[in-house]
Amino acid sequence: MAERNHGLPLSRRRIIWEETNGSVGEKPFLLRPKLIQFRLDTGARESAGKRNAMIRRFAMGTPFTTDTVIREIEPESMERFPFEHRTEDGTFVFSFRMEKDEIVYGLGETVRGINKRGWTYRSWCSDEPNQTETKQALYAAHNLLIHGKHGIFIDFPGEIRWDIGDTRVDETSVTVSGTDLDIYLIQEDAPLAIVREFRGLIGQSYIPPFWAFGFQQCRWSYFTAEEVRQVIRGYDDAKIPLDCVYLDIDYMERYKNFTVDRKAFPDFERFVRETKEKGIHLIPIIDAGVKKEEGYSVYEEGRERGYFLKNAEGTDFEGAVWPGAVGFPDFLRPEVREWFGKQYRHLTDMGVDGFWNDMNEPAVFYSAKGLKNALDEAEESRGKNLDLNGFFHLKNAFTGLANNPADYGDMHHLIGGKLISHPKVHNLYGASMTRAAGEFFEKEFGKEKILLFSRSSMTGSHRYGGIWFGDNNSWWAHILQCLKMLPSVNMCGYLYCGADLGGFGENSTRDLVLRFLALGVFTPLMRNHSALGTRSQECFRFENPEDFRDVVTVRYRLIPYLYGLLRRASEENGMMFRPLSFDYPDDPIARECETQLMLGDECMIAPVYEQNASGRTVYLPEDMAFFKLSGERVTKEILPKGLHYVNIALNEVPVFVKRGKRVPLCRPAMRTADLDGKPEEYLEF
Amino acid sequence: MAERNHGLPLSRRRIIWEETNGSVGEKPFLLRPKLIQFRLDTGARESAGKRNAMIRRFAMGTPFTTDTVIREIEPESMERFPFEHRTEDGTFVFSFRMEKDEIVYGLGETVRGINKRGWTYRSWCSDEPNQTETKQALYAAHNLLIHGKHGIFIDFPGEIRWDIGDTRVDETSVTVSGTDLDIYLIQEDAPLAIVREFRGLIGQSYIPPFWAFGFQQCRWSYFTAEEVRQVIRGYDDAKIPLDCVYLDIDYMERYKNFTVDRKAFPDFERFVRETKEKGIHLIPIIDAGVKKEEGYSVYEEGRERGYFLKNAEGTDFEGAVWPGAVGFPDFLRPEVREWFGKQYRHLTDMGVDGFWNDMNEPAVFYSAKGLKNALDEAEESRGKNLDLNGFFHLKNAFTGLANNPADYGDMHHLIGGKLISHPKVHNLYGASMTRAAGEFFEKEFGKEKILLFSRSSMTGSHRYGGIWFGDNNSWWAHILQCLKMLPSVNMCGYLYCGADLGGFGENSTRDLVLRFLALGVFTPLMRNHSALGTRSQECFRFENPEDFRDVVTVRYRLIPYLYGLLRRASEENGMMFRPLSFDYPDDPIARECETQLMLGDECMIAPVYEQNASGRTVYLPEDMAFFKLSGERVTKEILPKGLHYVNIALNEVPVFVKRGKRVPLCRPAMRTADLDGKPEEYLEF
Repeated sequence: MAERNHGLPLSRRRIIWEETNGSVGEKPFLLRPKLIQFRLDTGARESAGKRNAMIRRFAMGTPFTTDTVIREIEPESMERFPFEHRTEDGTFVFSFRMEKDEIVYGLGETVRGINKRGWTYRSWCSDEPNQTETKQALYAAHNLLIHGKHGIFIDFPGEIRWDIGDTRVDETSVTVSGTDLDIYLIQEDAPLAIVREFRGLIGQSYIPPFWAFGFQQCRWSYFTAEEVRQVIRGYDDAKIPLDCVYLDIDYMERYKNFTVDRKAFPDFERFVRETKEKGIHLIPIIDAGVKKEEGYSVYEEGRERGYFLKNAEGTDFEGAVWPGAVGFPDFLRPEVREWFGKQYRHLTDMGVDGFWNDMNEPAVFYSAKGLKNALDEAEESRGKNLDLNGFFHLKNAFTGLANNPADYGDMHHLIGGKLISHPKVHNLYGASMTRAAGEFFEKEFGKEKILLFSRSSMTGSHRYGGIWFGDNNSWWAHILQCLKMLPSVNMCGYLYCGADLGGFGENSTRDLVLRFLALGVFTPLMRNHSALGTRSQECFRFENPEDFRDVVTVRYRLIPYLYGLLRRASEENGMMFRPLSFDYPDDPIARECETQLMLGDECMIAPVYEQNASGRTVYLPEDMAFFKLSGERVTKEILPKGLHYVNIALNEVPVFVKRGKRVPLCRPAMRTADLDGKPEEYLEF
Repeated sequence: MAERNHGLPLSRRRIIWEETNGSVGEKPFLLRPKLIQFRLDTGARESAGKRNAMIRRFAMGTPFTTDTVIREIEPESMERFPFEHRTEDGTFVFSFRMEKDEIVYGLGETVRGINKRGWTYRSWCSDEPNQTETKQALYAAHNLLIHGKHGIFIDFPGEIRWDIGDTRVDETSVTVSGTDLDIYLIQEDAPLAIVREFRGLIGQSYIPPFWAFGFQQCRWSYFTAEEVRQVIRGYDDAKIPLDCVYLDIDYMERYKNFTVDRKAFPDFERFVRETKEKGIHLIPIIDAGVKKEEGYSVYEEGRERGYFLKNAEGTDFEGAVWPGAVGFPDFLRPEVREWFGKQYRHLTDMGVDGFWNDMNEPAVFYSAKGLKNALDEAEESRGKNLDLNGFFHLKNAFTGLANNPADYGDMHHLIGGKLISHPKVHNLYGASMTRAAGEFFEKEFGKEKILLFSRSSMTGSHRYGGIWFGDNNSWWAHILQCLKMLPSVNMCGYLYCGADLGGFGENSTRDLVLRFLALGVFTPLMRNHSALGTRSQECFRFENPEDFRDVVTVRYRLIPYLYGLLRRASEENGMMFRPLSFDYPDDPIARECETQLMLGDECMIAPVYEQNASGRTVYLPEDMAFFKLSGERVTKEILPKGLHYVNIALNEVPVFVKRGKRVPLCRPAMRTADLDGKPEEYLEF
C-alpha cells in the first residue's frame, strides 16, 4: 500500500471555534474573520455526551492513495467486514438488508431524494447537463452511505454502483469496480453523530472569504469589460446588493487557461482594480484542459515536462474541449498540481481573488480517435436506406462522442513511473484540480483568502474548495433538487455550495428566479447563473426589480448568521442543513419531509417550489414562529405544531424559528464589506 | 373560404344519456353499452340554469377548413374582436392583460400546470421524448384558452405561440403563424360552462368500447406470439386482471403498416382468436409513414394514386422513419383518408378490434436531403481541429436531423389541385390520420366497437378517437404531469386518455409503477407501457405482485362507475376530471391545488407522487369521507375540511367522497367481460 501523504495532521484533534463573546445565534455580528479567535479543543465534543463512536477500517489489496482520509486507522481484515460480500470479475460487491421503513442517507451530490432508497446511483464524475431524476451520476463522487447506525465510506477513486433497493426493494447492493480499496465503518447512535465522526476522519471543510457570502452574478458569458460594467451598474441602479461578477470561458483568449482576451478586456489589471474599487470581485473560470497551441507557454511547459495524460502508447492523449484539442494535466501527481497551482498566479497577480474550476470530470467533447470513427461511420452511411437500426447507429456515433468510456479508457496517468488507466482513478481528477489550486492559494495567501469552488469533486477536495451543483436547468423541479442536495453534500464535507439560481440551462421566468433566490438566500454560495442563448436572468432585467432587491436584501441581513453557521459546521464537523428526520426522528411526518430543511440550531426553511402558487403547505414538527422577510420588513406569526398553508409573496423569504431560539439580522448593505457588526433585530421565539 | 364539411350534424342539439334506472353514481352497474338507452334532448341542459352563453366567431382571410367546429356561426369582422390585435409579418397577434391572481386554463396536452400562466407554449405537434417542464410543445394542438369569462378557441392548423405571462408577467400574447383563421369567443360565467359550450361547438367526444376500460399492458416490443402468451400467463398466474396486450412496431414485417411478421406470429388470425378466447384484445400499432418498398401493395397503391406528401417539385417527399424511407399519406384529403382507413381491414379481418396510431405528428427521423447535408458536413470536418463552434455545428447536424423544420417546409399537401406547404397545416396531420381510421371504423362496425387512440391530435379528432400522452419517462414528476393534463385535455374534448403508467422511457422502479397505477386506476386509458432497453415493468414481474393485484383490482371494481362518467361527459359535453378551482373557486387553497383533482360529481382523487413517502398531504375543501381501496378491502375515515397528512400504502388507492355522494363498487373480475352488473358496495358519505 502506498504511503499516505495527508494534507492536514488533524487526526483525533478537533477545532472548536468560538467568537470573542458568545455562540452563533446570539451575537454573530462579530463573526467576520478578523474578529474571530480560535481555540483548539482536543477531543471533547459537546454533542456526543456519551462517546460511543467506533471507526473501523477494512482494507483489501493495495488501495490507491486518495488522501481523502486524514487519520491513520489500523486496517482489519475483510473477513471481519460485517456485511455480506464477495469479489466477482474484478469487482468487490457487498450488500445488506434494509428495515422496512429505514431511511438511507448519503451520496452527496446526486439527484432524487434525501432518502436514497429506490434507485441505483453511480459514483462516476459526469458532465451532466440534463439533470433529470433518472440520472445515476452527476459531477461528484461522495462515497458515504448511512445505513442504520453505520456510516459506510468507501475510499476508492474508481466507479462504484449503489443499488439502494432498486433491484430488490429491501436490499442495498454496492459494487466497487476494483478490489483494491479501503472501507471505513463508522458506528454511532444517530446519523448526525455518524456525520460528525466521518467528517473528523476526512478533515475540516473549506471556509471561503467572508465576501463570498455576498450575492453573485454569472452568465455564460459577459464577453467584454463593458458588459461586466453594465451588470454592476444594473445592480447598483436597482439597489440590489452584489459582491461578485463571474467571467465564463469567453474572457480567455481562445479558451486558453490563464490568458485574457485583450481585445475584450484591454487592461485587465486595471479593470480588476476598477471593479474592486466598486466593491465587486471578478471571478474567472478555469478549465481542466489546456489548449494545444504552439507558443502557448502553459501548454508547451506541460507538454515538455510530460505533465499531460497519456494514451496507452505513452504519448499525450488527445481530447478536445472548448478550444478544440487540449492536454489534460495529470492533477493526481504532486508535481503537476504544484505546477498547475502556480499558473493561477497569472491572474492573482492581476488582483483576482476567486476562481471556479470547471469541466474537470474531465469533460471531453471528443477524442481524435472517436471523431475519426464517427466520420468513418458517416462515410459508410452514404447512399444507404437507413432504417431504425442504421439511423440510430449513425446518430449515436455523434451523440456518443462526448465523455465516451472508450476515450476514458484510452487516458492514462503516469504515477510512480507506471501508466495507470484513467477509469481506475477517474473520480479523483476534478478533486485533484481543486487541490492543486487550493494548496497553492493557502501556501501563497493563507487560509480563507481566495474563493475557490469546483464543478467536479470527490470527498477530500472539501478541504480545498467548495462546489456548485453544476449545469442545472431553469426547472421548478430544480429548486427541490437543490434543497435535497444541501444536507447530503454537507454530510460529505461540502459546506460552501449552491445551485445555479434561476437555473443554468433553458429560459427561466421571473417567478422562478425569485423563488429560487428565496432558497438561495440560505445557501452559502448564492449565485445567479444562466447559459448562452437563454433569457437574461440578471435580477435587474426583470419587471419590478424591487422584488429582487427585497429578496437579496434579506440575504445580506442574514450573512453574518449564515457565515457563522458555516464556520461552526466546518470547525465542529457539523452540518448547516439537516433533514428534518435528523432532528425529529420519531415524528412520522417530519421524518419523510423532503421539501423543508433544518438550518443551524435555530430554524427551519421551506421555500415555495411551485409556479403560480401564493404559498405552500408546510409541516411544523413543533410550535414555531413564522417570519416573512422582505427587504428590511419582517412579519411574525406564531404557528402551532402541525400542517399549515402559508402565503408567501414573490418578494418574501419565509423562515421558521424554534422556541427559545433567535436569528440575528443585521442592517443590509450593497456590499458585504459594508455590513457592520451590529445585530439590528432578531427573529426570535 | 372552403366549404365546411362537418362530420356529425350535432349543432344546437345535445345528447343526454340516461341509464335505464337512475343516474351515474347511483346505479351505474347497468351502464354497459348493451344495457344503455339514449334519449335525445334538444337544447336544455341541467347545469346552465340561466342561459348566458354567447359564441362569437371572428374570421380573417380564407381559413383552411379543419372540420373542427360542427356548428355554423355567422362570422363577425375582426374589427369587433375585443382584444388588442394586429397583423405583423404574416402573423396575427392578439393580447390581453390578466388580473393579478387570475388563473388561465386550457391548451390540453402540454407540460406544466393546470394554470398555464408563466410560460410560452407552442401549438406544434411534436415527437417529444424528453418531456421536461421547459418543453413548449408536445404531440397535440389543443387551441382553447380560458381567460376570465372568455373561452378563446383558435381554429387554425398551423403553429400558434401562446406567451402566457412569460415575457410580460401580466400579459398574454398569442401569435398565430398566419392570417387566415377563425377565432371563436365563448362567453360564460364559469369555466365549466365555457367548456360545455365549447364542447358543444366541436361535437361529441369519442366513446371507446367498454372493454377499453380494462387494464392494458404494452411494451416496445413483445416480439413474438410466445412473448405475448407469456405476458397473459404472467398476469393470469398472478391473478392480476387484464384486458389488452399491445403490439408495438416489431409485430410488423420490417415496419410495414398492415403487415404481420409471419415468422414471429405464424398464424396471426388464429393467434388473435386464441387470445380473444382468453378474453384478451390484441392492439397493434399503426404508424403514419408507409414503407417505400417495391412490391408492398400499400406503398405501391399510395404512390400510384399520388396519395403521399410531395416536395416542392411535386414528386414524393422522401423522409425516413422506422423502416427507412417512407411515403407520408396525405391524410388531409378525404380520398386518402378513405383509402388509408380501408387498410385497417387487413387487421380487422383477422379479428383485431383496437389500434393505436403513432408517429403521426408526423415524426421524421431524417429526410434524404437532410441526411446528405449532415454527411457532407462530416466530410468537411475531417482533419480539422474542431473547437466549441465547429464541434457543436457538426454534432447538431446529426442531432438536428429529426423533425427538422426545413424538412417540414419541404413537405407539401396536394389540396384542390394546389400544393400547400405542410407547416401551414401541420397540426391537422395526426388528427386526420385518426379521422381516417375512425371514420372507417364507424362506417364499417358502428360506434363504440373499435378502440382507437392516437399520439398526435388536434381538437376535432376527439370525435374519432382518444389520445395517450406520448413518450413520457419513468419519472415521479410525470405522475403529476399526467394528473395536470387530465382536466386540460378534457376541456379540449379528449376523454378517453391516459399516460404510459410506470413511465415509457428509462428504468422504472416497483414503487413508481405502483404509485403511477394508483392514479391510472382513474384514467379511462389504463395502460402500462415501457420502452425497448428499459427494465421490464409488467406488474407480475415485480416482487410481491399481490400489491399490483390489489391496485388493478380496484380499477375493475370502479370500471362501471368510470365508464359511466366518461359516457356522461361525452354526452353532456362535460369533464370527467376537473381542477379543484372549478368546484371551489372561492377557496384560496383549493383554487391553487394542482396535485388533486375532482372526479365526476362524487369524489376527489389525490395520488401519492413522491418516492419513499408513506402517504401525502391532502387538502379537503369540505368534509369528506376518505377511503382506502386495496383489492376488495375498503377502509373509511371521515375527515374534516382542511389539511391532512394521510398514510397510503403502496397497494392502496385513495378516494375522497363528498357528503351526500356515493361511488359504487362492483365485484372485481379478471376481465371486463366478466364484470357483473351489480353494485357490491358503495363508497358513501
